[in-house]
Amino acid sequence: MDTLYFATGNAGKLEEAREYLDGQAALEQVEYDYTEIQSDDLGEIAATGARETYDAMTAEEANDGSDVNGSDVDGVLVDDTGLFVDALGGFPGPYSAYVETTVGVERVWRLLEAEDESNRRAHFRTVMAYADAEGVETFEGSVAGTIVAPRGEAGFGYDPIFEYNGQTFAEMTAAEKNAISHRGRALAAFTDWYADQ
Amino acid sequence: MDTLYFATGNAGKLEEAREYLDGQAALEQVEYDYTEIQSDDLGEIAATGARETYDAMTAEEANDGSDVNGSDVDGVLVDDTGLFVDALGGFPGPYSAYVETTVGVERVWRLLEAEDESNRRAHFRTVMAYADAEGVETFEGSVAGTIVAPRGEAGFGYDPIFEYNGQTFAEMTAAEKNAISHRGRALAAFTDWYADQ
Repeated sequence: MDTLYFATGNAGKLEEAREYLDGQAALEQVEYDYTEIQSDDLGEIAATGARETYDAMTAEEANDGSDVNGSDVDGVLVDDTGLFVDALGGFPGPYSAYVETTVGVERVWRLLEAEDESNRRAHFRTVMAYADAEGVETFEGSVAGTIVAPRGEAGFGYDPIFEYNGQTFAEMTAAEKNAISHRGRALAAFTDWYADQ
Repeated sequence: MDTLYFATGNAGKLEEAREYLDGQAALEQVEYDYTEIQSDDLGEIAATGARETYDAMTAEEANDGSDVNGSDVDGVLVDDTGLFVDALGGFPGPYSAYVETTVGVERVWRLLEAEDESNRRAHFRTVMAYADAEGVETFEGSVAGTIVAPRGEAGFGYDPIFEYNGQTFAEMTAAEKNAISHRGRALAAFTDWYADQ
């Protein structure tokens, strides 16, 4: 069985990806600090990161003549996620984590407060990039919603201001949110493709 | 005389840098699309870009056995500039150009409007990175000011909301603005250092 590596510091993401892979391949975590480039395009950011991580891990394998962590590196997964607000030209987009830390979610809501509801459309978007000896492929999942005044205590990040079907992500249980998750959709697109390889 | 290359698409920046270099070295423009990494640190972004551009240009020189553009590449300059607002944790910082395009300058003002004036401190900051065969050095220049409601028609970018000594940058002539310029200060730091080499 092939062994894939998911470059993430988040064990929850690893578990979720394992569920989608459903035993098609072994999936291990690797904490590799790949370069995140500046780009409007999540796919380009994730693809560059996956390529770099795969190249570094396989170079290491070749160098010491042995397998990394005792198994071949057959492929590497990297994900990138952002909240894209239509009326703000896609902001905060690829810089969502930075904007959350600096500006804060409450202020992002304030930027939209004066807009009509029809101008408050937004998408949560995740790209999974998969790099192996053949090249890099990217798989996208997205969820459309509306930016609203913060409501709810669950979740994290922009969840309190992202409304989907009458509820904010922060008002949903983890199970409800995962069922419509942008990351889940990207993972499903990847594992469908992977099954055909 | 040594020949340095300034990786920029902006001929105005090239002219300004030539004035500061004052004949110490020849300075040419190169339009090389170096990778901009995601980082809170302008210096890291500019240094990575200067290193990459220098390596690419000297590799090209070695490959075709001839000098690029007919002269040796003795060093490469790359600059990066951002507006750092204290009350927003440094936002928009390294992503100032992206935020200008997507969110817009008027909305950045709106984020600060509710704050006391003492909470509206900001810095314009430029880092010049210089890469040569020895390594990379970075030189910073900054100007402290206050974020205000937009005033003035001159300049570009965040100039209308950045007040220095009672005037916004957009209310100054180009000569007034250049005399207190963050980029000028970074260039002066670089050329002082370069003169000692």
